[in-house]
Amino acid sequence: MENRKLRGGMIGGGIGSFIGPVHRMAAIMDGQAEYVCGAFSSDPKKSKKSGKTLYLNPSRVYTDYKEMLKKEASLPSDQKIDFVSIVTPNVFHFDMARVFLEAGVNVVCDKPMTMTLAEAKKLKSIVEKSGKVFALTYTYTGYPMVKQARYMVRQGLLGKINKVVVEYPQGWLANRLEGKGSSLSIWRMDPKMAGAAGCIGDIGTHAENLARYITGLEVEKLCADLTHFIPGNRLEDDGSILVNYKGDVKGSISASQISTGEENGLNIRIYGTKLGLYWNQENPNYLVIKSPEGYSTTYSKGNPILCQDTQSASRLPFGHPEGFIEAMANIYLAVFKAIRAGSTSGCDYPTVDDGVTGMAFIETVLTSAASDKKWVRMLK
Amino acid sequence: MENRKLRGGMIGGGIGSFIGPVHRMAAIMDGQAEYVCGAFSSDPKKSKKSGKTLYLNPSRVYTDYKEMLKKEASLPSDQKIDFVSIVTPNVFHFDMARVFLEAGVNVVCDKPMTMTLAEAKKLKSIVEKSGKVFALTYTYTGYPMVKQARYMVRQGLLGKINKVVVEYPQGWLANRLEGKGSSLSIWRMDPKMAGAAGCIGDIGTHAENLARYITGLEVEKLCADLTHFIPGNRLEDDGSILVNYKGDVKGSISASQISTGEENGLNIRIYGTKLGLYWNQENPNYLVIKSPEGYSTTYSKGNPILCQDTQSASRLPFGHPEGFIEAMANIYLAVFKAIRAGSTSGCDYPTVDDGVTGMAFIETVLTSAASDKKWVRMLK
Amino acid sequence: MENRKLRGGMIGGGIGSFIGPVHRMAAIMDGQAEYVCGAFSSDPKKSKKSGKTLYLNPSRVYTDYKEMLKKEASLPSDQKIDFVSIVTPNVFHFDMARVFLEAGVNVVCDKPMTMTLAEAKKLKSIVEKSGKVFALTYTYTGYPMVKQARYMVRQGLLGKINKVVVEYPQGWLANRLEGKGSSLSIWRMDPKMAGAAGCIGDIGTHAENLARYITGLEVEKLCADLTHFIPGNRLEDDGSILVNYKGDVKGSISASQISTGEENGLNIRIYGTKLGLYWNQENPNYLVIKSPEGYSTTYSKGNPILCQDTQSASRLPFGHPEGFIEAMANIYLAVFKAIRAGSTSGCDYPTVDDGVTGMAFIETVLTSAASDKKWVRMLK
Amino acid sequence: MENRKLRGGMIGGGIGSFIGPVHRMAAIMDGQAEYVCGAFSSDPKKSKKSGKTLYLNPSRVYTDYKEMLKKEASLPSDQKIDFVSIVTPNVFHFDMARVFLEAGVNVVCDKPMTMTLAEAKKLKSIVEKSGKVFALTYTYTGYPMVKQARYMVRQGLLGKINKVVVEYPQGWLANRLEGKGSSLSIWRMDPKMAGAAGCIGDIGTHAENLARYITGLEVEKLCADLTHFIPGNRLEDDGSILVNYKGDVKGSISASQISTGEENGLNIRIYGTKLGLYWNQENPNYLVIKSPEGYSTTYSKGNPILCQDTQSASRLPFGHPEGFIEAMANIYLAVFKAIRAGSTSGCDYPTVDDGVTGMAFIETVLTSAASDKKWVRMLK
Repeated sequence: MENRKLRGGMIGGGIGSFIGPVHRMAAIMDGQAEYVCGAFSSDPKKSKKSGKTLYLNPSRVYTDYKEMLKKEASLPSDQKIDFVSIVTPNVFHFDMARVFLEAGVNVVCDKPMTMTLAEAKKLKSIVEKSGKVFALTYTYTGYPMVKQARYMVRQGLLGKINKVVVEYPQGWLANRLEGKGSSLSIWRMDPKMAGAAGCIGDIGTHAENLARYITGLEVEKLCADLTHFIPGNRLEDDGSILVNYKGDVKGSISASQISTGEENGLNIRIYGTKLGLYWNQENPNYLVIKSPEGYSTTYSKGNPILCQDTQSASRLPFGHPEGFIEAMANIYLAVFKAIRAGSTSGCDYPTVDDGVTGMAFIETVLTSAASDKKWVRMLK
Repeated sequence: MENRKLRGGMIGGGIGSFIGPVHRMAAIMDGQAEYVCGAFSSDPKKSKKSGKTLYLNPSRVYTDYKEMLKKEASLPSDQKIDFVSIVTPNVFHFDMARVFLEAGVNVVCDKPMTMTLAEAKKLKSIVEKSGKVFALTYTYTGYPMVKQARYMVRQGLLGKINKVVVEYPQGWLANRLEGKGSSLSIWRMDPKMAGAAGCIGDIGTHAENLARYITGLEVEKLCADLTHFIPGNRLEDDGSILVNYKGDVKGSISASQISTGEENGLNIRIYGTKLGLYWNQENPNYLVIKSPEGYSTTYSKGNPILCQDTQSASRLPFGHPEGFIEAMANIYLAVFKAIRAGSTSGCDYPTVDDGVTGMAFIETVLTSAASDKKWVRMLK
Repeated sequence: MENRKLRGGMIGGGIGSFIGPVHRMAAIMDGQAEYVCGAFSSDPKKSKKSGKTLYLNPSRVYTDYKEMLKKEASLPSDQKIDFVSIVTPNVFHFDMARVFLEAGVNVVCDKPMTMTLAEAKKLKSIVEKSGKVFALTYTYTGYPMVKQARYMVRQGLLGKINKVVVEYPQGWLANRLEGKGSSLSIWRMDPKMAGAAGCIGDIGTHAENLARYITGLEVEKLCADLTHFIPGNRLEDDGSILVNYKGDVKGSISASQISTGEENGLNIRIYGTKLGLYWNQENPNYLVIKSPEGYSTTYSKGNPILCQDTQSASRLPFGHPEGFIEAMANIYLAVFKAIRAGSTSGCDYPTVDDGVTGMAFIETVLTSAASDKKWVRMLK
Repeated sequence: MENRKLRGGMIGGGIGSFIGPVHRMAAIMDGQAEYVCGAFSSDPKKSKKSGKTLYLNPSRVYTDYKEMLKKEASLPSDQKIDFVSIVTPNVFHFDMARVFLEAGVNVVCDKPMTMTLAEAKKLKSIVEKSGKVFALTYTYTGYPMVKQARYMVRQGLLGKINKVVVEYPQGWLANRLEGKGSSLSIWRMDPKMAGAAGCIGDIGTHAENLARYITGLEVEKLCADLTHFIPGNRLEDDGSILVNYKGDVKGSISASQISTGEENGLNIRIYGTKLGLYWNQENPNYLVIKSPEGYSTTYSKGNPILCQDTQSASRLPFGHPEGFIEAMANIYLAVFKAIRAGSTSGCDYPTVDDGVTGMAFIETVLTSAASDKKWVRMLK
């Protein structure tokens, strides 16, 4: 591939969006790519205005992803996009990803991947047939110290893993408990847009994915208790799940949007026969290793003592905090590396397989929540 | 009652014991009581030696609690003991408490209270018949900031409670995972001494008790997953429990002795419709209240802004740390107040009712762990 | 100005540089600017290679800033650069800034601004004559919660300020104490490249600037104790300074590169008659306000309760960490706003005046360190 | 000495006192001693009432320490006191200690030891002549993890020490800044009762003592800036001090009572050529060791990995917090050990030499504060 920045398009993410700008900052901050087109909204005015604030050529700002695909396909090859970022509500992910993959465009897609497990499996075969890069933004796996955790667990430094506790408490819907509204929340609480799960789909999948990324453990069976506390909510806003992982490992996963006063408290604890481990997303540049001998060790990012993947995932020396945008930028860098190389080998980003497992997890949790039986086996 | 220090006896707690000295320091530090006799060990040499290090009259050092009861009963009334502290393995609690209560001696007993729920109920009627003080050392409820948490929840400052998460991770058995021994652990892992439960009896009951002390919530039904990770362990060393409290409150309780690198990490989070709350036993002088408005407030002990019970439970000004011994001393102070007053009214210590609930909790958890059904109702 | 990204050039910051990439990421991440040219190194190979990794047109990659200025000036106006980022050792700052300002190019320059106070004053008149934007990257003032601190102090919420404690401990030179080398450190320890000060110039000025940014306080007189612990070091690597600010405010500033095990621990505490304040660069998304009533309040970024400047300086919702790059990007955004508006009014970035004060601070500290008198008045 | 509890008397510390009860709890909690007499107040009613709450024989409750000495001296030897605890305002310390020492009674005295350095030196020769135990309650040196810090520094694990930073911020006088009163503060702000120094005497000496206890370093010269912020205050309520220790070690000591919102924030950082160290009194059971390799290690009390002195100074297993009372109790235990052994060898408590150095420090700081010269040599 010639020596140039990659060209991207975006679907969704117009003015007022939370995740759209994050994708854009993450994709461009390392100077490896630029956005050249987008369908930022189905509202023409909004999409146009979004394109203008991004200094895009107005002719490459669309209202419909199919129109975008068609028009962009007709451009000369030195203008064509290399990848598209899909940052819409869940309901649209599948078809958007499908058409761009089939047109030979690499895809970065927000999670959860699809509306159903069946759809997820279909998408998997589409990705495989396409030969294109498909990445899912399980952003938290992009943090340097998560990679260090993965390294230490995979190297066996913790011994045999016995127990994994992952929590994802948020409290942003708490005001709705008190009957106050919040427009931000609308589509995530609408089954037609978000799918059959609420907080389990939105954040529970992050928790499952984080544990699996670090440990490699697969859920064997689980037992879920889901609740919707918010009056009128059709989807669960809180869930606690007992988990049995394969290999005689016990665990629990919890996710909540009504944990009043919590912000974005994803955290994980892993206990092995030799050491314990703790990482917390809100203080992401540190990793705590707990010894049974009476001390704990806090590693901080940016130091040569860390594994190569962790060092590579950090842009700044120690003591200079990095955050969520940089974590997502690490996923984009891995995607760009794969696109430039024409091969995904050695490129560390969440894949369509992670998306399939995520959808299987969601459906298993929903099945368990509706069941009187204690254990439900993980769906495949 | 005349103006004098109260006189106490101790059963168990000889040289090498962990909890015996804690009871002694807690009972005497405020200058309200002194120990005058004890049966510190069934080994005569050990009991004698223990008595000597405590500067006791050798004639009042025994090897058997029944002998102690008999001999002490024959002493003149200005030498007789006002209370006895029972700090032996669980198997002995019931009978020791019984005989002293029936002899008119007030009792402070370690937890869990008995070996079975049936025994616990019997003890309850014995206590009631005796008219004596019976206190159980659920020590963590003696911390000043736990009392503040209770006050704030009970006053409704958190709004309607939706969710309660209590964890009690320890890692002190981790070395046994690796096949190394630890004499400290012996009786707690022996069903004949400890009862049918391992970590649930030893520390899980603390977790249940702490949540109930603060919130007043009663478990309606639960779903438990227990494990024994340590090779050869006949009792569980790890447990995760989904809990439904009465009043549509969700929760979880976990207890573990194999969480490598954890020390004594009892902690609780409570989420109401208005505020969230966090307290951690290892940093006990602080209470965190989380607001959904974007800030959290950390209250520290020893300040006039706190409720009266919290202020009374603190011996030092702000900024001067207090710890576990002082927490237990608060329980003893409440016991002494009740003994002096001849009435338990307004005396805040854990009672035989807490003991009955604790045993019901243990048996319900064991029932659930053995069941294929998701939910088991709390035994009565 | 037309609707387009701004165009920038860079001097210094080639492969291996720490601060060059930070400027680039900060300048481009918001999609407001792109770099189109640079003189990344005086080594032609290194500069060329750097340009290539940035996908620059090779014809716009230079080895000399004067050559770059001359060639770029000859380009048509729709290619000309709007700003230049100067990220070289201190010795070059003055002349580089001078020539670009005189050529009508806006300048963003690393700190400390110049080699001497005299040079700084000269640069100030050059900036004023030019009418161009000149910004100095006192990056820490770009953090959202630093802006909140400033707001709260300036609004009088802390009452009358009595005391300000700023510390900037680093330990990165510690290995040199033990006789081990570190190439990173070379030019910062060379008076010809760094100027007459070592850690006071490199990080002490950040500390002084942070305190002044938040409180508006000006140093009246100071008393400095400087040390060079590292064998052979010609510049101080540690300094402790007593400060009297105007308005009867006491303070202290310390800076160190030999505080073994510290990373980049800039932190500030401010005590007023009503409240105290604490902020720490290594955990930058939180601001602690301490009440004398027995509680402290921790505000976290991304919440509507914060002042408008703080909210604007944050790109993500609460609970999603932001870091050092985003802090610097906030400075670039303010610069870009000023360039687009053709006016610096309402644009919050560190100016040439901050640079002059910084150099006055450095020279006053050096004067004090060499003096037997207790107090030395701040130079003007 | 026969096998019995030691007998103590107390001077000062009546109802309403802060430090009196702390001494009592500390002295008796380990079952090694009991108080049998006291002159708790010069107000007879108050002293009598205090004696009653302590269940003392009314005939041994006094209003005057000389009367107490005389009456107690006439008691049979099996009732005589072994030690006296002096917990009055500073002005009385010297004479009280003198008369009891001369009467052959061991003394535990609150700090600062005397009103002047000259008095301190006199007391030193009185102590030496008496052959009795004289201990000063620099309580913070009784914490287990302070002993661990001392051990690690003295063993050379930190390498050669370069820098020591000790801070003792309090904010309890902050309300007086706002013109509100506080009876607690009266005598400490009265030069006739407290001596020539305010916060330097009350808490600055703790800071100096802590640094010296851990490192063994002696102040060579210092430079102090003292302030009284509180209107009408005759003594300083804030001080910042540059310190040069012997052996080319730099440091700073600060003490403040107007640091609004701080509680009792004594903390120390020590930087050697190999490692850094941090300990904070408000979280006393942990000791942080900072490595230049990118990690810090937090040791917690109660673990076998710690040095023998630290283990001996802890009464509970890891994870069970200990606090200020236990720290002081460690000092009393060392005193009791010395009394029983009739020798101070191997007994780790603060001595009259610490008191002399403390008074020398206070007078040197006051001299420096009044001087225009930068450095004042430590008085002897």
